Amino acid sequence: MPSPTPTRSSHPPGSPSTALLTDKYELTMIRAALADGTADRPCVFEVFARRLPAGRRYGVVGGTGRLLERLEDFRFGEQELAVVADSLDERTTDWLRHFRFTGDIDGYPEGELFFPGSPVLSIRGGFAECVLLETLALSVLNHDSAIASAAARMTSAAHGRPIIEMGSRRTHEEAAVAAARAAYLTGFASTSNVEATRRHGVPSAGTSAHAFTLLHTGPEGPDEASAFRSQVATLGVDTTLLVDTYDISRGVATAIEVAGPELGGVRIDSGDLGVLARQVRSQLDSLGAHRTRIVVSGDLDEYAIAALRAEPVDMYGVGTRLVTGSGAPTAGMVYKLVEVDGIPVAKRSAQKESLPGAKRAVRLHRSSGTAVEEVLLPWSGTLPPEPGLNQRELMVPLVRAGSPVPGPSLSRSRELHESAMVTLPWEGLALSEGEPAVPVRVVPPGSSTG
Amino acid sequence: MPSPTPTRSSHPPGSPSTALLTDKYELTMIRAALADGTADRPCVFEVFARRLPAGRRYGVVGGTGRLLERLEDFRFGEQELAVVADSLDERTTDWLRHFRFTGDIDGYPEGELFFPGSPVLSIRGGFAECVLLETLALSVLNHDSAIASAAARMTSAAHGRPIIEMGSRRTHEEAAVAAARAAYLTGFASTSNVEATRRHGVPSAGTSAHAFTLLHTGPEGPDEASAFRSQVATLGVDTTLLVDTYDISRGVATAIEVAGPELGGVRIDSGDLGVLARQVRSQLDSLGAHRTRIVVSGDLDEYAIAALRAEPVDMYGVGTRLVTGSGAPTAGMVYKLVEVDGIPVAKRSAQKESLPGAKRAVRLHRSSGTAVEEVLLPWSGTLPPEPGLNQRELMVPLVRAGSPVPGPSLSRSRELHESAMVTLPWEGLALSEGEPAVPVRVVPPGSSTG
Repeated sequence: MPSPTPTRSSHPPGSPSTALLTDKYELTMIRAALADGTADRPCVFEVFARRLPAGRRYGVVGGTGRLLERLEDFRFGEQELAVVADSLDERTTDWLRHFRFTGDIDGYPEGELFFPGSPVLSIRGGFAECVLLETLALSVLNHDSAIASAAARMTSAAHGRPIIEMGSRRTHEEAAVAAARAAYLTGFASTSNVEATRRHGVPSAGTSAHAFTLLHTGPEGPDEASAFRSQVATLGVDTTLLVDTYDISRGVATAIEVAGPELGGVRIDSGDLGVLARQVRSQLDSLGAHRTRIVVSGDLDEYAIAALRAEPVDMYGVGTRLVTGSGAPTAGMVYKLVEVDGIPVAKRSAQKESLPGAKRAVRLHRSSGTAVEEVLLPWSGTLPPEPGLNQRELMVPLVRAGSPVPGPSLSRSRELHESAMVTLPWEGLALSEGEPAVPVRVVPPGSSTG
Repeated sequence: MPSPTPTRSSHPPGSPSTALLTDKYELTMIRAALADGTADRPCVFEVFARRLPAGRRYGVVGGTGRLLERLEDFRFGEQELAVVADSLDERTTDWLRHFRFTGDIDGYPEGELFFPGSPVLSIRGGFAECVLLETLALSVLNHDSAIASAAARMTSAAHGRPIIEMGSRRTHEEAAVAAARAAYLTGFASTSNVEATRRHGVPSAGTSAHAFTLLHTGPEGPDEASAFRSQVATLGVDTTLLVDTYDISRGVATAIEVAGPELGGVRIDSGDLGVLARQVRSQLDSLGAHRTRIVVSGDLDEYAIAALRAEPVDMYGVGTRLVTGSGAPTAGMVYKLVEVDGIPVAKRSAQKESLPGAKRAVRLHRSSGTAVEEVLLPWSGTLPPEPGLNQRELMVPLVRAGSPVPGPSLSRSRELHESAMVTLPWEGLALSEGEPAVPVRVVPPGSSTG
């Protein structure tokens, strides 16, 4: 069962440099820009997703807090310089040796919703110092936002029932830790991942697996009762027993025989979960175990969770589909130069247009709180007030003159996310494929309201 | 362009403990097993995939080498123990404090092909020491094998043309490094990820992005020529110029004006790549730049690569679809207890059956080398010889009495993978959906050949 959650992420001690988590071309571009005198030109880069994954109605910003931590370790020591030296000249390695990001970053707070074009991050500074952060920023935001966006749909489908994140084994071992964090951000109750508890204070959960039941096999065959007895003796009667190793109704009967009707929970990890949940509930009730919870797991995603809404399920365990973004394993965010020396710029290629000029974002809400439109304005533009609609600034200062602005704890971001979800128009919560729930309007640079 | 490759992975200095990259239930199971006296029962666990991703004809084992490195850092120090102490008793924390894996591990060498049920890893030792490795082993193998399996299809579709891995920005920052390694294992030429070069010796590649061209914008507008001039001055005439920021044929003309017909390459990152490649090739030829290479990138996967086979493309850049496993972001491997004290065991649940008993794997090849069948035998079983078929043992010793057996370098594993691909029946290389290219036959424990 979950343990209490700390309020602030703690940075792992002695973190190694993150500077090489970078695409080589950032470095060769900096070399050329230093040589031709453009390295310090004032620039604005923006991070945004051109579109949401097919049919998704909203995205959730994840990873901002983690990115700011990792940026503090973005330093080139002699070890890092040695790796890149052969494709750089001395001027560039010197520049990297003294590199500290000195610019400003604004962005959507973690947990906020985003839509196509939303400037989730806006980075201002010299060309070289900004372009250098591209890969790390995108890696963190694309991964964590993909997981957060999938997780939010699962939380919403679970309709208040708690979800345990248990997908570590299905994704890269470090991505697993970030996935547990992103899931918690969007309302998951707990995680199986121990490092996520240490690093990010996510409440931990976990009891036992089929292996433990199978371990209790002797020359006379399986001995489920002895496995259950051992687990209850050690972890207490409030533990959750896994009842589907052999026959489920035998498993439930044995569980209550061993633990009594005060047993905390039973877990079912296979089969037709809806049918089984009903059978198991009725069996538990008939044995007097009215308060024994039913935990279900096994290839659950938001659709399967929604399909179980009417069934007597108390808790979900979600793994694979969470850590793989439920079909959308990356958020598709890009990092684009939008302004050079005050001049709006943009690539013109087909299907990959971006909107020139630095932007800020305002969301319009009815007095009920419902979001009706997101407006992207020129950075110093204003939007005339409209009756009955409140304007909400979406971007907050994240870094000022290279220093991170103290930000919210993960628990606080979780609350922010919860309030943001409440502002979605009702159709935004539908799991079916649809359009983005909040339309985005762009006010181009130089227009009357710009 | 690629730099030379070292032959052995170097372990990052001062690696932190990997022991908490673990699901909590491994620890609570160990606690219960220590209490009831089953913790040291001799066990065999196996890692296998029940099935390949829909329509895939083979899988590629990736991550074995990386897993063995990470296992060496699987140690509980006081810091790690403090995190887990509240759900454990003193006996368990003491056991963890002194934990060293003392068992044996055998498995498929990295780069080898696998099929449904292939025992990719076989772990033998006491229950507690084996169950503890479950999450880390699965995380590494599921991620790296998913990427390797997708990458192999891309390599095969590219038909000898080199592929640059450039997907770092679309996946978790640490998964990116592992993805670059897995792609190289299966034949990719190089990576954009600098840390993959340091950590695994993958050759590096990268020149410049649209931002560099856009940076060269003045009050009079875009100045592509000045961006190209700067890049050529700094990186040399063998560099690759990105020609699609504005108009591609103007871009190509400018590139050759600036660099001359000796220009190394041009990259096209958007649009209809086949049509554009033909146009650009003919334009380059008309300008005398017969040896200037054409690099294409932009949402490529194995199908898009195959569709470009007849076009004048010299090199591919692949990003998103590689790091997300081209639709299959996890390999679906599980870690199952198959034997306790010499007794074969298995869960009996629907759709999640596993095959009881420790297994070893033999692949049968015709004298031409083509693989025709994979046979899973009881651990000490033998297979009677069949005329015209050679038996090849698939599993190699990876760990003996807790110590890693010195293994092949990544370059050597890359060669092994290349030879394994040659043994696939011809239909195995088809990109279309199909059955596993090599059928797997199971000889159950106790049968006559067992």
